[in-house]
Amino acid sequence: MISAGIIVEYNPFHNGHLYHLQQTRKKTNADVVIAVMSGQFLQRGEPALVSKWARTNMALKAGVDLVIELPYTFCTQKAEKFAEGAVYLLTSLQADFICFGSESGNIDTFTNTINFISNHESDYNRFIRQFMNEGVSYPKAASLAFQQLAQQLAPSRDLLDLSKPNNILGYHYVKALQEIGSKTVPMTIERIHAGYHDQQLSSAKISSATSIRKTLAENRTLDHIQSHIPDTTYQELSTFYQKFNTFAFWENFWPFLKYRFSHSEPNELKDIYEVEEGMEYRLIRFAQEATSFKDFMEMIKTKRYTCTRLQRACVHILTNTKKEKMRNKFPEYIRVLGFNQLGRQYLKEKKERISLPIISNLSQADRKAVQLDIKISQIYSFAFGNNGQKIMEEEKKQFPIIVE
Amino acid sequence: MISAGIIVEYNPFHNGHLYHLQQTRKKTNADVVIAVMSGQFLQRGEPALVSKWARTNMALKAGVDLVIELPYTFCTQKAEKFAEGAVYLLTSLQADFICFGSESGNIDTFTNTINFISNHESDYNRFIRQFMNEGVSYPKAASLAFQQLAQQLAPSRDLLDLSKPNNILGYHYVKALQEIGSKTVPMTIERIHAGYHDQQLSSAKISSATSIRKTLAENRTLDHIQSHIPDTTYQELSTFYQKFNTFAFWENFWPFLKYRFSHSEPNELKDIYEVEEGMEYRLIRFAQEATSFKDFMEMIKTKRYTCTRLQRACVHILTNTKKEKMRNKFPEYIRVLGFNQLGRQYLKEKKERISLPIISNLSQADRKAVQLDIKISQIYSFAFGNNGQKIMEEEKKQFPIIVE
Repeated sequence: MISAGIIVEYNPFHNGHLYHLQQTRKKTNADVVIAVMSGQFLQRGEPALVSKWARTNMALKAGVDLVIELPYTFCTQKAEKFAEGAVYLLTSLQADFICFGSESGNIDTFTNTINFISNHESDYNRFIRQFMNEGVSYPKAASLAFQQLAQQLAPSRDLLDLSKPNNILGYHYVKALQEIGSKTVPMTIERIHAGYHDQQLSSAKISSATSIRKTLAENRTLDHIQSHIPDTTYQELSTFYQKFNTFAFWENFWPFLKYRFSHSEPNELKDIYEVEEGMEYRLIRFAQEATSFKDFMEMIKTKRYTCTRLQRACVHILTNTKKEKMRNKFPEYIRVLGFNQLGRQYLKEKKERISLPIISNLSQADRKAVQLDIKISQIYSFAFGNNGQKIMEEEKKQFPIIVE
Repeated sequence: MISAGIIVEYNPFHNGHLYHLQQTRKKTNADVVIAVMSGQFLQRGEPALVSKWARTNMALKAGVDLVIELPYTFCTQKAEKFAEGAVYLLTSLQADFICFGSESGNIDTFTNTINFISNHESDYNRFIRQFMNEGVSYPKAASLAFQQLAQQLAPSRDLLDLSKPNNILGYHYVKALQEIGSKTVPMTIERIHAGYHDQQLSSAKISSATSIRKTLAENRTLDHIQSHIPDTTYQELSTFYQKFNTFAFWENFWPFLKYRFSHSEPNELKDIYEVEEGMEYRLIRFAQEATSFKDFMEMIKTKRYTCTRLQRACVHILTNTKKEKMRNKFPEYIRVLGFNQLGRQYLKEKKERISLPIISNLSQADRKAVQLDIKISQIYSFAFGNNGQKIMEEEKKQFPIIVE
């Protein structure tokens, strides 16, 4: 069986994701598509709108064959670490291809860019330090450094535009594949219609997940987004809302985050992952004044610390995740969230060649390995008030979702 | 001016408190009645129904002349420490008398009992250890030890019934007065009608605060309790409810306490005051299953740890108060919550002879001294959702309430 891996958040699964899925199959001729999907919190430091189980349902119903969880240690991370975790899982799973969407759409520009940067690494790093000394954030400095390097040394070469978010992610996917010596072959598809960060719904049927979430947060009804998502997503979102009475937004967690800042001493926060350089004092001080999470972010963001960076720190504070818990270089297990018959057959066939333990039943799993992900679900459940209990029941259901 | 001190919680101020106040004036012939009142959390490990400011209003409008805060370090404590803090403040304030309600009603039984126990201290302590080895709680063991001692050695003497809650408190007041060599003279008034722990409203107009709170929690309306409280209390409770939309019950804090248990490692709880003997493991485990605070208490209480003891531990966990913060032997400041003209005049007259700093304006106070009480108000504010902000505005208002 030919297999293609994709790296996703599906927050929520929309028409653009469907296009990506279809194109992946077409381009790779894959029999099986494996999605490595973020768990309850996401790369940009946000809670997932709906639980990983509901998102697994969306994925399977839209045609994904096998859904694997990207553990917390990797899913709420900067692009580099996020990519390393996801790519490592797909490599372990013996995926023949990885196929990702990008603004570029041309895989050669990725390898060219990686080679170019690697050939000029010391200049590149010097530029990054220079820009950071001017006070900008690391991702911004890296993008500016690359731009400067490319203009000076290779103005006419076919290199990536590394100011584009999906190009950045793709760059890290391809780089991680090289670094771990993976046999998995990278491919890319040009993204159509929507920009990753677009705030407004597009008039076409493909809109960014950001704009879909924003519309949902403002209207608290599915009406406005219906034409931008497959029916299966619509059904799943409706079912979830009926069951939980809300979607999970940062604002749902705000009272708890604020409480956390109210009861904590600065020295109790300094060991939290991504809390650095005395950031804890600033956060504690402003949390007292802020009346919403949005308000809080407006108060604390700086040129040096982007919203995304601060949101991730806030997720780790909310979940009380210490630096020492995030030291794993690579994932240590494969947690199966769901599959169809093909996906199950694939796992069965490859089982012998997969070195990581495959967890499909929590009760048989090495408890210590999955402990953090269980705790994360517990914290995630606080978005849902009294209905939170159901999140933990889901989590302990222990068996992958099967869609035939 | 003759002054009488009383030690109160006023949760809420009811007809029994009014009787105590009137009898205090009559018995001591006092010109000024000074109430030392618990802050936002109370002796038995519960949040106060309404803020300390609202309760100060109730006290002043019912005729108390001066209201002083019993700081957190003393108000959420076992009887002995609670008494020491309160008695120390009244002694510092140069109160001529302390007048407390008790089941006994006879001050000589208190001094007799103190002398009796002090004369047989080693036997008394041996009995306490014996009973504790059988697994009962410390207060229970102390009460049984005393009973046994009295039966064996002084069956016919006029000693206290130390199984009664107000006798126990009174015993500690009188003992603390002796220990600090106070010139303040203790007096006691027999409590009428209601038992301290009564759950049901009495048919008479004096009911226990416990029964009043229980009725309020069940009905969320003031109708049923109106005849058991003075009009001034009724007005104050109504105003508070209109402003905050709820009273503060433990259940309001349950999501935050549960969240605290969900995100904390056991070793992060073991330094909390009153968390002992590995209690943290038990609490974390059961908090996951419990669906309400009541449910939680039912799960965790044992013969050794009474509800009161566990509730106090939960308050300290909620407020993240470490053992090291609770080491003060005596209060270090006098925080004035409110007064009438007489109360103000009294303070003015005695000022020179009061050695503790008097805080009536937070901005002029030694910030470090009042820091804990400010933090406690911040945590208390989480009972009120978005209205919590108003609790902090009250707290920072900084000036005592003046009722003319």
